[in-house]
Amino acid sequence: MQAEIIAVGSEMLSFGREESNSLAITQYLTRFGIRLGRKLVVPDDAAQIGEALAQALERADVIVLTGGLGPTNDDCTREAVAERLGRGLEENPQLLAALIKQYRRFKIHLSDNNRRQAHVIAGAQVIPNNRGTAPGLLLQEQGKSIFLLPGPPRELLPMLEEAVESLLAQLANRLPRAERQLQVVGLAESRLDQEIEDIYLSYPDIETTVLSSTGVISLHFILQENGDAQAHRLDELVGRIREKLGPAVFSDRGEQLAEVTGRLLAQRGWSLAVAESCTGGMMGAMITDVSGSSTYFAGGVLCYSNSVKTRLLGVKESDLLQGGAVSEPVARQMAVGVQAQLGTDWGLAITGVAGPTGGTAEKPVGLVYLGLSGPFGSEVRKLQLPGDRMAIRRRAAYSALDLLRRRIIQ
Amino acid sequence: MQAEIIAVGSEMLSFGREESNSLAITQYLTRFGIRLGRKLVVPDDAAQIGEALAQALERADVIVLTGGLGPTNDDCTREAVAERLGRGLEENPQLLAALIKQYRRFKIHLSDNNRRQAHVIAGAQVIPNNRGTAPGLLLQEQGKSIFLLPGPPRELLPMLEEAVESLLAQLANRLPRAERQLQVVGLAESRLDQEIEDIYLSYPDIETTVLSSTGVISLHFILQENGDAQAHRLDELVGRIREKLGPAVFSDRGEQLAEVTGRLLAQRGWSLAVAESCTGGMMGAMITDVSGSSTYFAGGVLCYSNSVKTRLLGVKESDLLQGGAVSEPVARQMAVGVQAQLGTDWGLAITGVAGPTGGTAEKPVGLVYLGLSGPFGSEVRKLQLPGDRMAIRRRAAYSALDLLRRRIIQ
Repeated sequence: MQAEIIAVGSEMLSFGREESNSLAITQYLTRFGIRLGRKLVVPDDAAQIGEALAQALERADVIVLTGGLGPTNDDCTREAVAERLGRGLEENPQLLAALIKQYRRFKIHLSDNNRRQAHVIAGAQVIPNNRGTAPGLLLQEQGKSIFLLPGPPRELLPMLEEAVESLLAQLANRLPRAERQLQVVGLAESRLDQEIEDIYLSYPDIETTVLSSTGVISLHFILQENGDAQAHRLDELVGRIREKLGPAVFSDRGEQLAEVTGRLLAQRGWSLAVAESCTGGMMGAMITDVSGSSTYFAGGVLCYSNSVKTRLLGVKESDLLQGGAVSEPVARQMAVGVQAQLGTDWGLAITGVAGPTGGTAEKPVGLVYLGLSGPFGSEVRKLQLPGDRMAIRRRAAYSALDLLRRRIIQ
Repeated sequence: MQAEIIAVGSEMLSFGREESNSLAITQYLTRFGIRLGRKLVVPDDAAQIGEALAQALERADVIVLTGGLGPTNDDCTREAVAERLGRGLEENPQLLAALIKQYRRFKIHLSDNNRRQAHVIAGAQVIPNNRGTAPGLLLQEQGKSIFLLPGPPRELLPMLEEAVESLLAQLANRLPRAERQLQVVGLAESRLDQEIEDIYLSYPDIETTVLSSTGVISLHFILQENGDAQAHRLDELVGRIREKLGPAVFSDRGEQLAEVTGRLLAQRGWSLAVAESCTGGMMGAMITDVSGSSTYFAGGVLCYSNSVKTRLLGVKESDLLQGGAVSEPVARQMAVGVQAQLGTDWGLAITGVAGPTGGTAEKPVGLVYLGLSGPFGSEVRKLQLPGDRMAIRRRAAYSALDLLRRRIIQ
């Protein structure tokens, strides 16, 4: 089965506005083996919407339109689709009653434009909208399925989960495809691919996707069928890749690195403190993004200036003068210092040259030292990280969290 | 003039992959008054590319294709366009020589597929690619302009700036439009719009766009012509809006809030330290995102646990016990404490309930206290912030930076 997405809305064609709904829709489509054939953004223009729909019907089995169902003057998707298919629009009494209730609650006058949201294209199935006023619609035409879904993500995303997913399952007449994922840290994408290419290429029936973002890589493995045999085959591939990559794999459930590292600490009743120089709080922010992190995260010291390194963390002034702030002894003393100062089980430290200025021949931009101090003593890791200021900082924070994670599971 | 964008690449139709090039291209188009009529993502399929081009030629004056110019087997944009327009492909000797040189440098064999990157559609103008192997092309057809641009953003973005911008200026035969922008903090989008709607609606010739992201709003004002009269009119509108919004406007140059607050500190020779509880380092990360922030930012304390608040910042245990960590006295003592502890001119503190758990009837999720201590004494601000955990944390950090900024410029 093949699908096309038509996103309707003039605002998505002006500068600075993204079209993001299609990413969520694609996720649901591919879950049932429905391939996305193309996607299109058109303005709020009935003629263009109608024409795009007609062309999509020539190619695709499933057409998903989003946006243009609301109460404002320019919203015209419902009317454009009805006209193009030569179908009438009927006012649905239940929808109208619900609409009147909603508008009364917000003390807004129900104008004729507002009232259009209770109109249903003849023969269409209504998809309830629990977060807004305009329902979704599903219709069949020439043996093909056409979805009309609302544009605002806060209405669309719950509707996808609550209703569209099961409708797609019915259309595709199947279970969701079988899939697995792995999250990997500490390997460049090209290096990772070299390592595992031979393995996943020997499973040509499994679709392997490598999604890379700064510092972390997601691997997705998909089989278009689902059953015991498929599950077994996926588990076999995933098992071989886990074996090959070893501790570089940190999750098989799409978790954040800070979440996994935090859980390892919590399971052992350990507490953590951080000392951040070049990352300036980024690692602390990652750790505390996780709700419940207070059970293991005590806090830390942002020692952007050298005087904070000496005053709060006890870093020796002589070491700062001799080797500079970006050096092995300073990273170690930061970790040991923050652990002692906050009285935690672990101290984790980052000091580096994030750039774009401040690099030297001896200490180039991207040079980072990580310090770790814990129940088993202290250690330092030296890294040379690629990318711009933001990328170096993100990679440094991920690398530090990863260093702690590997030390715990070792 | 009207444009359409056709992004070519099957990978952009698979899950998890965004199409982002069109956002950058739209920025350049609108700069010369060229409106985007629609945008489309098609797979690497010559028939579909050719058909999409033919249809776009019926509607638009400028068609921009991106992607599919590279050396791999599935790259076929160049060939598809040539075929659809009935034009030949010629090997360009200069391009071939450059290509041979590049491939020799990287010790890669120049296959026939690689060699296609030196092919030029008959009559096309070559747009140099200084970051990759496939050049861009510009051709005229039926009085319309067709751009073929590379897909990788690291090649495309510099090409837009270095070559495409001036080509668009020639095509549109005009200067860039006149535009202004303002960055606003501390107002909800609906409230902001209420405040300024009467003003901008009285300039119907100026296009006003409100782009909102969590905590910060950008206002863009555009006049499609450019000259002294237009500049004067834009300045008048911007002046009236600045007057209305007062200190809520923090930049007219698209700067980050932390950049502006930092510059105010630097200009006065002041230093800053932060104490972060619920934000866990997010404010420090924002401050140190700015290169050169070490001239005014000393660092700070992440006091996620209460014991860090007392041990490192001198917050009174009695106040923590009586009023809790999210309270007026604790916020004040955090600010005073970090200022004293780090010996800075200013101390800025955040304590709050970020959620999703931990809220009570008395202290609901979103309750945040900001503390500020500086040359003029100390103060505390109580906020009730909307949104999820991430939004509350971001809004808290922006609000704190804004509190300091307003105190300095007051």
